[in-house]
Amino acid sequence: MKERILTGDRVTGKLHLGHYAGSLQNRVALQSQYESYILLADVQALTTHFANPERLRNALRGITLDYLAVGIDPEQSTIFVQSMIPEIAELTVFFSMFVTVNSLRHNPTIKAESKNSGLDEMYYGFLGYPISQTADILFCKATVVPVGEDQLPHLELTRKIARRFNELYRPVFAEPRPIISENSRLIGTDGNAKMSKSLGNAIELDSTTAEVELKIRKAVTDPSRIHKHDPGHPDICPIYAYHHAFRPEGAAEIYAECTKGAIGCTECKQRLCTALNTLLEPMRERRSFYESRPGDVDDILSSGTRRARAIAQETMQEVREAMSMNYF
Amino acid sequence: MKERILTGDRVTGKLHLGHYAGSLQNRVALQSQYESYILLADVQALTTHFANPERLRNALRGITLDYLAVGIDPEQSTIFVQSMIPEIAELTVFFSMFVTVNSLRHNPTIKAESKNSGLDEMYYGFLGYPISQTADILFCKATVVPVGEDQLPHLELTRKIARRFNELYRPVFAEPRPIISENSRLIGTDGNAKMSKSLGNAIELDSTTAEVELKIRKAVTDPSRIHKHDPGHPDICPIYAYHHAFRPEGAAEIYAECTKGAIGCTECKQRLCTALNTLLEPMRERRSFYESRPGDVDDILSSGTRRARAIAQETMQEVREAMSMNYF
Ligand code: SF4
Ligand code: SF4
Repeated sequence: MKERILTGDRVTGKLHLGHYAGSLQNRVALQSQYESYILLADVQALTTHFANPERLRNALRGITLDYLAVGIDPEQSTIFVQSMIPEIAELTVFFSMFVTVNSLRHNPTIKAESKNSGLDEMYYGFLGYPISQTADILFCKATVVPVGEDQLPHLELTRKIARRFNELYRPVFAEPRPIISENSRLIGTDGNAKMSKSLGNAIELDSTTAEVELKIRKAVTDPSRIHKHDPGHPDICPIYAYHHAFRPEGAAEIYAECTKGAIGCTECKQRLCTALNTLLEPMRERRSFYESRPGDVDDILSSGTRRARAIAQETMQEVREAMSMNYF
Repeated sequence: MKERILTGDRVTGKLHLGHYAGSLQNRVALQSQYESYILLADVQALTTHFANPERLRNALRGITLDYLAVGIDPEQSTIFVQSMIPEIAELTVFFSMFVTVNSLRHNPTIKAESKNSGLDEMYYGFLGYPISQTADILFCKATVVPVGEDQLPHLELTRKIARRFNELYRPVFAEPRPIISENSRLIGTDGNAKMSKSLGNAIELDSTTAEVELKIRKAVTDPSRIHKHDPGHPDICPIYAYHHAFRPEGAAEIYAECTKGAIGCTECKQRLCTALNTLLEPMRERRSFYESRPGDVDDILSSGTRRARAIAQETMQEVREAMSMNYF
């Protein structure tokens, strides 16, 4: 029997190459090996975007197309909508009873945010999102969760909540284990450590050939290179990072040529563009296939959500029994 | 069209004369005038009793019998189980997004608790119970909520959340208005300001004649009365308070006789016992009727919960539309 893996994305905007390198690529590779569940986290997106639900609505379809474009196979992977699984909300409420405010404040994201604006000004739902994340993982009894190094404390809380539930009531949940993703972050085109739509330094997965070329042309490189023959420092250059991530077979050569001053940035960028467009081209085809079949996309989401819901209902039944709350 | 009223009880133990005087009596009187919904708040009981779900399970049936015994008519009033309405959990999660920790800390119960043990040691679910209470009221669009004076700030938060939701998305919720209950607290048999099961100073509604007599015999009276002819101070005497609450027509006479030293405490207590047993006798009959028909009690709960659930689903549909979260 295959283990169950949970992944997902906050539904706030289109996905980009950073998501691809950091998780989507991996998800596609793992989907045959695991029973794969992919969460469209619209409720979690509300923690920061409650005032713009229209944006979430659009992002939901956009991300689904991104998934299908990169090669998530809806026959192998169950794509589902968080807000349509009421059992996740119910589990969130139940887990809330035995998690202290203090243990939430240990979460690095919460800690950073409460340093910025103070705990008092924080929204209650935002403070609790590590519990909601736990419910996302445990409702479907995922045993494997791919996480970036920085996400490990989140999963630690999930494991703690699973243990606590089992101790308080009856063993219902296995403690999920992490798979650490290597490429958890991709540098932005402006050299910022993180590619992010909101920083304007991202290359979206739905970019056209021309858009890719424009963004790569405008991307920063090693600023100390003035002339083609100046030796470069690929380690600080996003273009090199992209070669490394998306054209690994040619990365060593780029590294050597750059440090020797044997390649100009223009040519280096051209080779990257070719590689990126080779990567994106089949995605564009799959995207346009599904774009012209919106009914199919709805069916994928609704049947995925139905599958996830059935598991959620089973889990909830067990939870109610364990808590003696199956009254009649 | 009748207005809808929401009342309910935390499902932590049997109900007593304090509940009867403070709310049940009033509920029975109002059930024909309003469309009455009565919440068995088992999820809210978890905020303090998550480690003892068996206790909640027993209390749930016990309180239902209490309701039926005092004269709640299941044809007129909808009695329902909180944990069986997932939409309440969903609304709680949605409302959580735009309520700050600070506004929860203004709630008097939370304020008192966070003074005792610190905000950090508080359970997240406990901190959020005013939001969950709001979801209890708004899911069924109750427009009237009977509250004690001390509960007014809770309802103020509910009104604020309803307004905020309507502003953010679309008008879905009316702001419920309070009906202030007069007898919100009944003194305990030990003279403590509040009758409470956990203080051991309560007379449960399911007490037998002998139990009532024993508890009244042991109850404190004005300690300055040594002899029958000593003038007494009925204002500090629980026995007088009970005459006032449960035998109002004779209370003025007791007051006069006590202050004049014209009645002994023993006789005063005997008259009270007679009155209490007269009050409780029809309750005992209704209780034993339903006790012998556990299937009927289950049916009352399950059909009430079904009715409440249907309303919850309608409300949730409106909420999803208002939030643009009705995807397909
Ligand atoms: S040659 Fe390539 S890796 Fe070197 S600095 Fe220029 S763009 Fe960057
Ligand atoms: S006579 Fe009645 S009211 Fe007065 S002190 Fe005794 S018990 Fe209380």
